[in-house]
Amino acid sequence: MTSKTFVGNFFEDFRVGQVIRHATPRTLSEGDVAMYTALYGPRFAINSSDEFARSLGLPRAPIDDVLVFHMVFGKTVPDISLNAVANLGYAKGMFGAPVFAGDTISTASTVTGLKQNSNGKTGVVYVHSVGKNQHGSVVLEYTRWVMVNKKNVEKPAPQESVPTLPEKVPVAELHLPPALHLENYDFDLAGSKLTWNDYEVGERIDHVDGMTIEEAEHQLATRLYQNTAKVHFDQVAADAGRFKRRLVYGGHVISLARCLSFNGLANAFKVLAINGGSHANPTFAGDTIYAYSEILEKSELPHRSDVGALRIRLVATKNSPAGNFPYKHGGKYDDSVVLDLDYTAALPR
Amino acid sequence: MTSKTFVGNFFEDFRVGQVIRHATPRTLSEGDVAMYTALYGPRFAINSSDEFARSLGLPRAPIDDVLVFHMVFGKTVPDISLNAVANLGYAKGMFGAPVFAGDTISTASTVTGLKQNSNGKTGVVYVHSVGKNQHGSVVLEYTRWVMVNKKNVEKPAPQESVPTLPEKVPVAELHLPPALHLENYDFDLAGSKLTWNDYEVGERIDHVDGMTIEEAEHQLATRLYQNTAKVHFDQVAADAGRFKRRLVYGGHVISLARCLSFNGLANAFKVLAINGGSHANPTFAGDTIYAYSEILEKSELPHRSDVGALRIRLVATKNSPAGNFPYKHGGKYDDSVVLDLDYTAALPR
Amino acid sequence: MTSKTFVGNFFEDFRVGQVIRHATPRTLSEGDVAMYTALYGPRFAINSSDEFARSLGLPRAPIDDVLVFHMVFGKTVPDISLNAVANLGYAKGMFGAPVFAGDTISTASTVTGLKQNSNGKTGVVYVHSVGKNQHGSVVLEYTRWVMVNKKNVEKPAPQESVPTLPEKVPVAELHLPPALHLENYDFDLAGSKLTWNDYEVGERIDHVDGMTIEEAEHQLATRLYQNTAKVHFDQVAADAGRFKRRLVYGGHVISLARCLSFNGLANAFKVLAINGGSHANPTFAGDTIYAYSEILEKSELPHRSDVGALRIRLVATKNSPAGNFPYKHGGKYDDSVVLDLDYTAALPR
Repeated sequence: MTSKTFVGNFFEDFRVGQVIRHATPRTLSEGDVAMYTALYGPRFAINSSDEFARSLGLPRAPIDDVLVFHMVFGKTVPDISLNAVANLGYAKGMFGAPVFAGDTISTASTVTGLKQNSNGKTGVVYVHSVGKNQHGSVVLEYTRWVMVNKKNVEKPAPQESVPTLPEKVPVAELHLPPALHLENYDFDLAGSKLTWNDYEVGERIDHVDGMTIEEAEHQLATRLYQNTAKVHFDQVAADAGRFKRRLVYGGHVISLARCLSFNGLANAFKVLAINGGSHANPTFAGDTIYAYSEILEKSELPHRSDVGALRIRLVATKNSPAGNFPYKHGGKYDDSVVLDLDYTAALPR
Repeated sequence: MTSKTFVGNFFEDFRVGQVIRHATPRTLSEGDVAMYTALYGPRFAINSSDEFARSLGLPRAPIDDVLVFHMVFGKTVPDISLNAVANLGYAKGMFGAPVFAGDTISTASTVTGLKQNSNGKTGVVYVHSVGKNQHGSVVLEYTRWVMVNKKNVEKPAPQESVPTLPEKVPVAELHLPPALHLENYDFDLAGSKLTWNDYEVGERIDHVDGMTIEEAEHQLATRLYQNTAKVHFDQVAADAGRFKRRLVYGGHVISLARCLSFNGLANAFKVLAINGGSHANPTFAGDTIYAYSEILEKSELPHRSDVGALRIRLVATKNSPAGNFPYKHGGKYDDSVVLDLDYTAALPR
Repeated sequence: MTSKTFVGNFFEDFRVGQVIRHATPRTLSEGDVAMYTALYGPRFAINSSDEFARSLGLPRAPIDDVLVFHMVFGKTVPDISLNAVANLGYAKGMFGAPVFAGDTISTASTVTGLKQNSNGKTGVVYVHSVGKNQHGSVVLEYTRWVMVNKKNVEKPAPQESVPTLPEKVPVAELHLPPALHLENYDFDLAGSKLTWNDYEVGERIDHVDGMTIEEAEHQLATRLYQNTAKVHFDQVAADAGRFKRRLVYGGHVISLARCLSFNGLANAFKVLAINGGSHANPTFAGDTIYAYSEILEKSELPHRSDVGALRIRLVATKNSPAGNFPYKHGGKYDDSVVLDLDYTAALPR
């Protein structure tokens, strides 16, 4: 009789080059989309209306890119981050084939780096995760790195190996569905007249609205993504822990901030890349999330005169409006900042 | 660099005759239906079972009329009522083509009246809103009037213009899907033997059951409808406001009351019209909603011997059962009354 | 004018042999599946992925068996247990045809036993409930017995009649879809290498994780199933009752425990039978649910070399981890035990 319960991988269980096929492939459905709408209230027309998506050359409304991210991310949790101390960062997140209701996503990860911490108790694991649809097309790939506990601190440190990661996804690697065209883009239905041309590098946009998180909401979301990290669900365990509270999944805040950013960036209709991101401070139920954006970069896209890309810093704050644009003090995040996300979005020109 | 955030229209921004095409067309899905079921527990067989709907001549289960109302209403909020002080009333709400999962609803509104209040700080805006499906057929139209803040109180008052609105939708304008027939209506599956013939004008029905509202529930609902009114979502802002609480969207109470009314009106299978309605008192999370109905009128429908119409006053109360039928005292609503809805429903004869 | 509200059946309203066709047939959809995923976080690959299900010979992902149970159970509540004091037990629960999104389930029950209690105020009602799909195939049948109030204690006791119920569903009556085959079963995607062969009778498995229940969650779940038992929804009524709290639907705990059991029983991909079950103690919002399993029996299945059956005792506890395997003391359940479910599952051999 052996133990049947999987307690997750520890730092010493990972090897550079190791490939992990994650469990629980997932067919995304209109039900997931409705649940996502109820959780965050997204209003981007391309994801909300089959007719609007068809007017842009797509067969029907694609599934929100950030929902695709959560579905892929969630599958990696049991193997990668069940014993994580912290989710340290993201790099080179690239969205590929659009995902439609009915598509089935499978996820695999490759360990691309390992670095034991000097305390000998934890280490940093770098993984490159790839989500593919049922046709084998990549829908999303990204690297993340997490600090993971060692189970046996006596185990020797692995050879240190840290992958080289770009600050941002190069424009040449951004992917737009080839069928997509914007001649018939209806700015009334999209909710704003503002195009790529209207934004300037350095401009900051306060997204004004706030959204208070309830315990039931983040739990529903995190389970929807089949993300099993226990810090989100178990109040008895939380009572014995550092925060005394269930922690809100960082991705829940990404979705809230992205949906709040509609007011000011209504035509940033597609996330092309996640260049980087930090969950700057923990979020708990009862916190009210606000957001602002800063335009970091404007890029034309190769062979596309109808669409341009904005590289955007999306900052979420908790419990105080974002209109004074809090960020960092001396390299350290302001206490009100909970998310610092660097992403690239497509807008009509 | 101009402000990118839309803060909503103020009273002085509206003109009589102005047409507003609202953003965010919405494809309704089985996911929305499931979410609606989870939120309210509706049991009307025609909306719950494709087979039951087919037995009545429809291609499949139509989407609950009140859910259609919320989807249309939600789209009007960013343009009409973001700066509203109060949602004052509804008139001449008429349901048209049935809506099925897969249909896409777009909404436009025409300003039909304006009346500045004597305080000079607010005014009443009348809008006629029309939701259409992807074929251009009207699925719902209604007039509502809201009290909206002026931004600049110095702006002169517009010429006063108040539309003439009927007390109720005339029987001749009620719409039943032509394909619908009730020969095979299965009263066991519908949950009651009571027909149109069994109800009498003046009769009052206590719907007995109560439903306590949770903060997460009304937020999920209101976001599902892409209704962006900030009073429902932002506790930090609420702390600085009059109620210190997030306000429950009035439509959430309509749905709760309509679903509670199944016990007593199980065969009122279709809402034909919303004749009028008031959100008599505010509702907050933690409130328990009860409901009673009063039969106001019985009408035969032209050319239909199988279906009759009841005009019903649906009253919702909070925190005390509705069995003593609280309503008004000297023209003022009883403190326990939160909804006074005058609607017309179809029942088998 | 007669009373229009149905207050449910009382003990004296039931007759042995009586057949009740329950109201509200239900078309199950992808929306229900997504809501179920958000509520419990199930990870069984067969229910999560159409592709995985196809690799096993099914046309697409079947709907989780426990969700089917809730949908059938919910329909029986208005007729059977609205006036129930307690849900006493289940026997001979057998799953039949798999259910897919788009199928419509109708439910009928036959009263198979009646036994008035010696206090003269209550009695036990035994019902055999059968859920069928739109083709008339049985998807689930089970017997349950509930203690129901008498309305009129003066009414004479009915002739006592108690059905003979088996301790478990015999192996010969377990049903697997004929098309199902496991040659291509992908253990990586399923989340575990453990097969039927790896489990031993008497073995106990601590499922480790805990899940804290929120008020909004169990209400959303119970309404999704169209279960109308008022103890779950009405805090004003609860304030006047024994527990002062809304009671969590017992089936909600079954789903939580079943989903927690994935960690340790990931390949127990299908529930074949519910042999018996008790809701040992009440559960309330705020409780954290843990679970453990005990293998009661191993059985080969007739004519199947690829699949074996495990009879499993699934025990859920509240507010303390299940690793010390609490159960009964002198025939009485430990205070921490909330569910004792005896079921049979299929696993690859």
